[in-house]
Amino acid sequence: MIYLDSAATSFHKPEAVADAVYNAIRHMGNSGRGGHTASLSAARVIYGTRKKIANLFGVSDPAQVVFTANSTQSLNMTIQGLFHAGDHVITTAMEHNSVLRPLYRKEQQEGVSLSILPCDACGTVRYDLLEEYLQPNTKGIVCTHASNVTGNMVDIVRIGAFCKKHNLYFVVDASQTAGVFSIDMEQMGIDVLCFTGHKSLMGPQGTGGLCLQKEITLPCFCVGGSGVQSYRKIHPEEMPTHLEAGTLNGHGIAGLSAALDWITETGMDNIRAQEQKHMRMFYEAVRQIPQIKIYGDFSQSERAPIVTLNIGDNPAEEVCDALAERYDIATRGGAHCAPLMHQHFQTETQGAVRFSFSYFNTEEEIQTAIQAVREIAEEWT
Amino acid sequence: MIYLDSAATSFHKPEAVADAVYNAIRHMGNSGRGGHTASLSAARVIYGTRKKIANLFGVSDPAQVVFTANSTQSLNMTIQGLFHAGDHVITTAMEHNSVLRPLYRKEQQEGVSLSILPCDACGTVRYDLLEEYLQPNTKGIVCTHASNVTGNMVDIVRIGAFCKKHNLYFVVDASQTAGVFSIDMEQMGIDVLCFTGHKSLMGPQGTGGLCLQKEITLPCFCVGGSGVQSYRKIHPEEMPTHLEAGTLNGHGIAGLSAALDWITETGMDNIRAQEQKHMRMFYEAVRQIPQIKIYGDFSQSERAPIVTLNIGDNPAEEVCDALAERYDIATRGGAHCAPLMHQHFQTETQGAVRFSFSYFNTEEEIQTAIQAVREIAEEWT
Repeated sequence: MIYLDSAATSFHKPEAVADAVYNAIRHMGNSGRGGHTASLSAARVIYGTRKKIANLFGVSDPAQVVFTANSTQSLNMTIQGLFHAGDHVITTAMEHNSVLRPLYRKEQQEGVSLSILPCDACGTVRYDLLEEYLQPNTKGIVCTHASNVTGNMVDIVRIGAFCKKHNLYFVVDASQTAGVFSIDMEQMGIDVLCFTGHKSLMGPQGTGGLCLQKEITLPCFCVGGSGVQSYRKIHPEEMPTHLEAGTLNGHGIAGLSAALDWITETGMDNIRAQEQKHMRMFYEAVRQIPQIKIYGDFSQSERAPIVTLNIGDNPAEEVCDALAERYDIATRGGAHCAPLMHQHFQTETQGAVRFSFSYFNTEEEIQTAIQAVREIAEEWT
Repeated sequence: MIYLDSAATSFHKPEAVADAVYNAIRHMGNSGRGGHTASLSAARVIYGTRKKIANLFGVSDPAQVVFTANSTQSLNMTIQGLFHAGDHVITTAMEHNSVLRPLYRKEQQEGVSLSILPCDACGTVRYDLLEEYLQPNTKGIVCTHASNVTGNMVDIVRIGAFCKKHNLYFVVDASQTAGVFSIDMEQMGIDVLCFTGHKSLMGPQGTGGLCLQKEITLPCFCVGGSGVQSYRKIHPEEMPTHLEAGTLNGHGIAGLSAALDWITETGMDNIRAQEQKHMRMFYEAVRQIPQIKIYGDFSQSERAPIVTLNIGDNPAEEVCDALAERYDIATRGGAHCAPLMHQHFQTETQGAVRFSFSYFNTEEEIQTAIQAVREIAEEWT
């Protein structure tokens, strides 16, 4: 199989990841639930991984790193906790449902008002409208670092500065960029960064988390067993326990740790360069094919390694089926959980075919994919 | 290491579990996020595991099985969704903080009133007080199937019948019993069963879930990406997607699936018999040792495989340290996240030493543990 769906989840992972999880399952106890070797080694792995994540995102204290099951949970916890009745929140039309739906729910159920920054013709957010959208009760901006549909990157530094100037919370969804694009929360003015472990971080499913600046406090999301302070009726206030309840996915975190080591050893710049190369090779070739329509801003010098397109009027899901069945190429068709992007491009009915590239793809695979698109386009248009 | 802390997490797991997770990491895509082989195989594994869980707990439709990260999350979702201002809820002094803290929070923040059934001298809930605790606005009972401190089992059938008679929700925390003790939700009148994957189910950390009777609806907990119905502003209403958002821990669920197969092949009765045997052997020996105080009802014909004790006045954590450092025996001291049990036994300061047994322990290990307790008791009392 030629796997070109890394934006959904990483398929080829560094070998050390599966090894690390295997070994953890064989040797790890329950972190913070005992003073014996198995429990202590679990605690060490988990603490060590917090440190690696803290380093990766430019926060000083590992206690600012909270583990969750996935990015969606991180975003729910953050949006749930930061915004309240009477607040106004700005988000964008580039967002994934994991940002949109928690915000819609806040709007519907709790009297939070919501503004959605539209995009330009290429699908990049209209920064020029930020001032216009600002209101006296605007509390924060929640946005993605890169669109999972177009790959367009958001100028985080620009929005971070805007938030700083107007004293707004800045929440960033780094699902498509963590581990590939450099993110420094301090420098970029990010208050809460939500990330997932199983996409560009190359870790296992069931891992993810959030990083919070020290001055940000969120109310508990889940409460329960904390390993310490068992006699208090309320869940501990100390971070990160405050935002974690019950047994952590220590096995998964061990795998995430191995993935982070691999990223450090391989070098984020090298990983990114390789992925950009695959994306550009694919883009430059398919854009020449008649009847191909590509969605996104390819004038950006760096983008998430995604090329989303349509072949004539053909429903995207049919193209994806053909790619899978005839060429054994994995892609993703449909709406990609990003309804406003498809409304923007008027692809709600047709959907779109997303190709997303990994460090582990080969040039040969890219060429095969290009040829496949060419052949399908010839037959179907 | 002699691992006698299975109540915290399973340490020796069936070999197939680590293998299954390893293979899943190497081959699995993101379930419900694509029509290609990797995504479809992920969907198949996940659906198959839902079926196994449904069978295990006696529910007819796999869609009634919801996956979460752990039991604590399941209990939070359930308690959050079922009970509202003006409701009265009954729970017990046997509970873990994963039941107590969500209920205390409801009490504090939302005007739910809470009654806690006390225990008798042996630490078993006072069933005789149920009628007295019942109020006109009682909405449900939330309780454990077995105490993680004493191992005492709760008569689920009896409480289920009481709930049925008075039209109350019945929520059971099966963290210590799933996969070892037979649980039939229909027969026992259980409305929501919360379970964790990494304890008696022998699966990996980061897995767990809840089973709901068809007529029970909970509001969404997290909302976000759902793979389907992307254009709706609200998260899907169909189960189980309604209660799952974002990428599932497919890798962990693959491991849980292998664990469930092992339980079926080995036979739940065989597993339980072996664990009861270890527990009885240990209990019968240590009860003879002077200055040993044991907490729990050993007249129950079947109990969770736990023996919790103290040696004279010695702080439990010091005994656990000695067991770990001198004998390489893993146990758990302290409060076990079950404050009311320790308040009941007046062990808040001393804590207690919990030994919990697994199918994979050997007779030799039990004998070594008995001897270790004997030696420490001789030296320290």
